[in-house]
Amino acid sequence: MRTDFSWTRAQFVIPPGTIYLDGNSLGPPLKDTKAALAALIDEAWGAQLVDAWNASYWIDAPSRLGDMIAPIIGAPPGTVLVGETLSIRVFQAVHAALQQAPSGGVVLTDLGNFPSDRYIVEGLLRELGGAYRLEIVAPDAVADHLRDDVAVLLLTEVDYRSGRRHDMAELTHRAHAHGAITVWDLAHSAGAVDVQLERHQVDFAVGCTYKYLNGGPGAPAFMYARNAGKSDVSPILQGWLGHSRPFAFEPTYEPAWGIARFQVGTPPIVAMAVLEHALALWEHVDMGDLDARRIALTERFLAGITTLDHPLSVVTPRDAAARGSHVSITHPHAYAVVQALKAEGVIGDFRMPNIMRFGFAPLYNTVEEVDTALARLERVLRDATWDAPKYHRRNKVT
Amino acid sequence: MRTDFSWTRAQFVIPPGTIYLDGNSLGPPLKDTKAALAALIDEAWGAQLVDAWNASYWIDAPSRLGDMIAPIIGAPPGTVLVGETLSIRVFQAVHAALQQAPSGGVVLTDLGNFPSDRYIVEGLLRELGGAYRLEIVAPDAVADHLRDDVAVLLLTEVDYRSGRRHDMAELTHRAHAHGAITVWDLAHSAGAVDVQLERHQVDFAVGCTYKYLNGGPGAPAFMYARNAGKSDVSPILQGWLGHSRPFAFEPTYEPAWGIARFQVGTPPIVAMAVLEHALALWEHVDMGDLDARRIALTERFLAGITTLDHPLSVVTPRDAAARGSHVSITHPHAYAVVQALKAEGVIGDFRMPNIMRFGFAPLYNTVEEVDTALARLERVLRDATWDAPKYHRRNKVT
Repeated sequence: MRTDFSWTRAQFVIPPGTIYLDGNSLGPPLKDTKAALAALIDEAWGAQLVDAWNASYWIDAPSRLGDMIAPIIGAPPGTVLVGETLSIRVFQAVHAALQQAPSGGVVLTDLGNFPSDRYIVEGLLRELGGAYRLEIVAPDAVADHLRDDVAVLLLTEVDYRSGRRHDMAELTHRAHAHGAITVWDLAHSAGAVDVQLERHQVDFAVGCTYKYLNGGPGAPAFMYARNAGKSDVSPILQGWLGHSRPFAFEPTYEPAWGIARFQVGTPPIVAMAVLEHALALWEHVDMGDLDARRIALTERFLAGITTLDHPLSVVTPRDAAARGSHVSITHPHAYAVVQALKAEGVIGDFRMPNIMRFGFAPLYNTVEEVDTALARLERVLRDATWDAPKYHRRNKVT
Repeated sequence: MRTDFSWTRAQFVIPPGTIYLDGNSLGPPLKDTKAALAALIDEAWGAQLVDAWNASYWIDAPSRLGDMIAPIIGAPPGTVLVGETLSIRVFQAVHAALQQAPSGGVVLTDLGNFPSDRYIVEGLLRELGGAYRLEIVAPDAVADHLRDDVAVLLLTEVDYRSGRRHDMAELTHRAHAHGAITVWDLAHSAGAVDVQLERHQVDFAVGCTYKYLNGGPGAPAFMYARNAGKSDVSPILQGWLGHSRPFAFEPTYEPAWGIARFQVGTPPIVAMAVLEHALALWEHVDMGDLDARRIALTERFLAGITTLDHPLSVVTPRDAAARGSHVSITHPHAYAVVQALKAEGVIGDFRMPNIMRFGFAPLYNTVEEVDTALARLERVLRDATWDAPKYHRRNKVT
């Protein structure tokens, strides 16, 4: 397979004149999304009504969509489940990892992790009593802090601010050497970099589908478990669809076999229809090609930044293996620059206190867009006077 | 206001020739659902991209939709939140109730509760250590089991099998007299009966929106908290959107004021657009009229059952105040009867081991449909030979 990225680009709705470099926050819709939803409503929900749960295979959507995500993250079939939100999946995965960890009282994470992962885990550990504590270290210091008292290593592979990418193979290997179980958050990786969960023997992974997987705003999350099939994990969220016989309505909970035990509530079918439509595109994408394109786009942008008349401080690593698919730059007037670029049709985003962030989605961003964005960035930096008011807080979902 | 139920009926998509008596499992779509989704995609997601979180008020959807549900369940504005699944909401609500309970080690529920609520609470109590235990009694025995060692009373108001409805006012009052906190599951009540959460001083309530609220398959759940504003509850699920300043990405979690602290993950905007469209209909519905129509429809069906040539055993109470909006009947060949009725265009459903269940949705079911359903039921019972194979298990979401 040789991925045709002009064809994938053509599948997306992107407003004319817009260079969209914020797909790492929210991916754009695919062109036929409305048609997919119309089919769901006309042929399934509105025609079959409640029978659609079986007749239209709604009930299988969590595992069916999971199997569509599996090849994108280097996972075998039957190990990925779709549903709930990323926060819920972090809660479940860390709880399950603690059960699998042979010993140790520390959950290790880093300062680059998305705050929500930390909030969720702190809440979990509090409820579990004093047996565990969360230890938060600098990203560069994670390897040195892997010790025998670490039960679980929880990391976001690609830092949402800096774009720095952890070495998943190395850190997972080291964690295992100390008996720790690994939980990787792929929010900024899935669909952006060539993730290899099975090869690196990752234990648990979670992620969202509304960024590079283009599943729509607030699209359901996914969860991967390497040993879910043979594990004796008792999920903390004993949802009825995680029961081994959910439709028997038995009085006692008994977890289903494998990853299915992490199902919780009734699957969100309308949201899943949008996601399923977006995931179908990936059948035509070779992950090696995707990674090469990620590198080409980010490399061209990084190289271009150094040629601008205005010196800029790049936060994102220059080593392509050590970054994801977005590039972050600090600027004292970062918020104003991002707003000025937006007025020029280039959509990036701002992260406090002084970061401007540009995401390059391999499926639809182009080399020409990189060059145009650079030219407009140069113009904005040249013309700006920076007497604009300071940024105000924006309610934007990362 | 005098609700025009022929007008509300006209808003729904119901296949011609179908008498749909399973809206207590999955409500049908509204006619303009596709248009609502097209607007979301064309005018917000596809046009504003990530800016739609603010520009199209996506970020406010959980509380905005909560305020639309509030009058349907007798709750004041600002006390209801939409998002996540019902299982998650039960988990959160019971945890929060345990924090508010002054003492006691028992969570009391009944055998009529949906099994998932029991599974979820058993998982929660296990993780909290040995401090609490779940006690499950017969529905009629709940009042007698309210004692001072009961911390939380968790009940589903309308039993999903029998249709029996608890006396929310009386049981909440009694629970409070013993210092217990109440959590009511409104899955089979919201949009079907006249729920009065504020009047009865209910502490917490949860519910789903895909039954009588017609939000679509797997539509997001809701949660109500009476004292969320002044409470010091620390949510067990410390999701980033429940933070008091979620977009500051602060290292430490601090719960938002009020019901907002129970927000967890990124809201599912596509699913919420479908739900919001369905909820808009309720602006034209007087809840007293709705309740009167519920009683008229179920009463007519129950009266008709007694006139059939074939004696049937009705499980649902004859007292209109003691039932919800569905009627359950036992029959030794219940599964076969339900299938035969379906072949005649009358959609009810089957619940193990021998229950056939008929839901009457006040917004769209009609008196004529009740009469026709009765006539077809009589014909099926008269003509059937019952040599059909025994039922097989169906994967249908209740």
